[in-house]
Amino acid sequence: MATPVSPLAVALPDLPPLAGVRLAAAAAGIRYQGRTDVVMIELAPSTTVAGVFTSNKCPGAPIDWCRTALKGGKARGVVINAGNANVFTGKAGEQACVATAQAAAKLLDCPAKQVFLASTGVIGEVLPHQKLVAALPGLQKKLDDGAWEDAARGIMTTDTFPKGATRTAQIGETTVRISGIAKGSGMIAPDMATMLCFIFTDAKLPADAMQTMLRKGTDRSFNCTTVDSDTSTSDTVLLFATGQAKHPRIPSGDGNNARNRMLKDFARALDEVLLDLALQVIRDGEGAQKLVRIDVSGAVTAKSAKRVAMAVANSPLVKTAIAGEDANWGRIVMAVGKAGEPADRDKLSVGVGGTWMARDGGVVPGYDETPVVAHMKGKEVEIAIDLGLGRGKATAWTCDLTHGYIDINGSYRS
Amino acid sequence: MATPVSPLAVALPDLPPLAGVRLAAAAAGIRYQGRTDVVMIELAPSTTVAGVFTSNKCPGAPIDWCRTALKGGKARGVVINAGNANVFTGKAGEQACVATAQAAAKLLDCPAKQVFLASTGVIGEVLPHQKLVAALPGLQKKLDDGAWEDAARGIMTTDTFPKGATRTAQIGETTVRISGIAKGSGMIAPDMATMLCFIFTDAKLPADAMQTMLRKGTDRSFNCTTVDSDTSTSDTVLLFATGQAKHPRIPSGDGNNARNRMLKDFARALDEVLLDLALQVIRDGEGAQKLVRIDVSGAVTAKSAKRVAMAVANSPLVKTAIAGEDANWGRIVMAVGKAGEPADRDKLSVGVGGTWMARDGGVVPGYDETPVVAHMKGKEVEIAIDLGLGRGKATAWTCDLTHGYIDINGSYRS
Repeated sequence: MATPVSPLAVALPDLPPLAGVRLAAAAAGIRYQGRTDVVMIELAPSTTVAGVFTSNKCPGAPIDWCRTALKGGKARGVVINAGNANVFTGKAGEQACVATAQAAAKLLDCPAKQVFLASTGVIGEVLPHQKLVAALPGLQKKLDDGAWEDAARGIMTTDTFPKGATRTAQIGETTVRISGIAKGSGMIAPDMATMLCFIFTDAKLPADAMQTMLRKGTDRSFNCTTVDSDTSTSDTVLLFATGQAKHPRIPSGDGNNARNRMLKDFARALDEVLLDLALQVIRDGEGAQKLVRIDVSGAVTAKSAKRVAMAVANSPLVKTAIAGEDANWGRIVMAVGKAGEPADRDKLSVGVGGTWMARDGGVVPGYDETPVVAHMKGKEVEIAIDLGLGRGKATAWTCDLTHGYIDINGSYRS
Repeated sequence: MATPVSPLAVALPDLPPLAGVRLAAAAAGIRYQGRTDVVMIELAPSTTVAGVFTSNKCPGAPIDWCRTALKGGKARGVVINAGNANVFTGKAGEQACVATAQAAAKLLDCPAKQVFLASTGVIGEVLPHQKLVAALPGLQKKLDDGAWEDAARGIMTTDTFPKGATRTAQIGETTVRISGIAKGSGMIAPDMATMLCFIFTDAKLPADAMQTMLRKGTDRSFNCTTVDSDTSTSDTVLLFATGQAKHPRIPSGDGNNARNRMLKDFARALDEVLLDLALQVIRDGEGAQKLVRIDVSGAVTAKSAKRVAMAVANSPLVKTAIAGEDANWGRIVMAVGKAGEPADRDKLSVGVGGTWMARDGGVVPGYDETPVVAHMKGKEVEIAIDLGLGRGKATAWTCDLTHGYIDINGSYRS
């Protein structure tokens, strides 16, 4: 990869072995040369699974496959490839999924529907699944509980650094671990960024409990982040619980208070892993030079606050101003107003880096730009917006919009 | 202005005198030096008015003023300034509007509420309305029915060319004229683009009929265009009818078939003027190198088609691909899917410049990229999307997303 590493990159944390998970990566030559591009993950027989997927109405074939497979609630394996997204490939796309899952299932001795699939890369080209299938036996032989970094690197497209996170949580007296890897949103010409995220825990969890926690957690992490407002056809977050940890049984059935209490610390740790990975993706956003956090308070509801925060996070004019290190609160006011949510110009306050700049419908009297200018020169920018209407709060994250974004996305396919 | 003229610029058409309209421009030094920045327009006493304004929830003080003034349905004058948007200026903003309108009303011998106001430029700085008021007597003395180009130039901010359009229409046996000027969406650091449009006709029209036609016409023109998805706090389209033409009386009251028939040709010409001006604004979009037209057909409804067209028009990944002259239909599929409207991957067709590239969930067999590559090199790019679901149709227009956009919007305020 010739692209320089993002200035916002963080080091991959140590991801220790997690009981019931073995991983391997290989170079199958799907599109890239001289690097790994296929990852296989084996999961213990008792593994349960939850997943959330892109809201794009034209999803890739692997998304369709996973949505169906998820109904079974069980997982024995995952096969992921980089370089070809298997999107808009018609019948051939479906067939590639079936062939890959069947081949992996045979090696893992499980039904095909317990193999989960994800692909990222070019759109509209038929996935050469023969190469993928041919790589599987070699991958199986290499499976190792220490190959987390290999897996994190094998799913990268034009990501400039591998992404991982790990936390521990208490369930009763037992400590369980949650580890995850993710890729995105570097670009591979000519495609949109795809975000893939795979999270594993040794806890033993009913699929419905996982699905509830995962949905909530992604709403507060990945779904609060944006690089460029374009929603990939392949976004995937999968959570696997291998059930290898010894802790009190978690009952099935939602709305169970005892269960919620038992899983409170687990949900906290899961949220942390999801947010950690989501922010790593934003740190690797195309052309990103600054990580931007937008805190909205005083909205009529939390939902309204989130919409306002995302409108600011998606505003090209706010993002180019941040790239230019310009604390342009006029553009922030504009973006708040265009969100379509309840807002009153004369009750609105806008601040950057802890300094309020605009309040009560005008600039703060005696506003001194000095600390704000200093804050804008840093790698992390914090914007605060108080709508002054209610108690709704939300936070969104994005990156700035730079020439790098145009360079990456405006070049002709070669 | 150091900015080079847009490669998509068109020449200002000859705008002949229009009975009941006199115009003048002057240099009041509001922000710019060495150019005109204030425009005054005098309208005949019987003039009726209609208007549509920004949907932004944090509008500028002149928008509030116009919304109130519009309730009277009558107009005698318009005062427009460039260089300061009078947005987020609190009580001072309101006072600037009142003072300006009162001063103009005194000169024009009319109630202040018959003076319409528009401002474009920097946000959050108090408008030095004393300069504006001081310029009005001189402007009044210069009023001239031939000063259309002066007016079109006087409202520019970082527009690279003046914008105007004119058409004639028949009402009964009488020929009436519709002429308009517009500005946008060049940027003035550090503000968002503002689109202002003023249209005049010598027809004699009830305000309610004008409002209906204007709303419909803007929905099909300005509201189908986008440069960067950011909605200004100051967008304004005003239509004035001076009533100087001699034609059969147009009755008041909506839903009147006889009236609709009488105004059919007028509505056609008005739509043409609105679309002509809207496309001139897109041609002057920040950094624009290509004008892009997106035709969506086969949607379940016209509304759904418009949402899909706008999702494609607002997609940074589609727009950067066009800047790179890349007919990247994968990104178009992505943008269709993210619109959230009914879409079926397997029924979708995508074409560029008259060549279908993708159809039935995959690339068209034997697809030859040659004519598409040639089309992408031109200044005008046409994208066709057939959803294959129903009979809903819509068209949207945008420009490409280039380094010029980042240059214009990412530079620090100086």
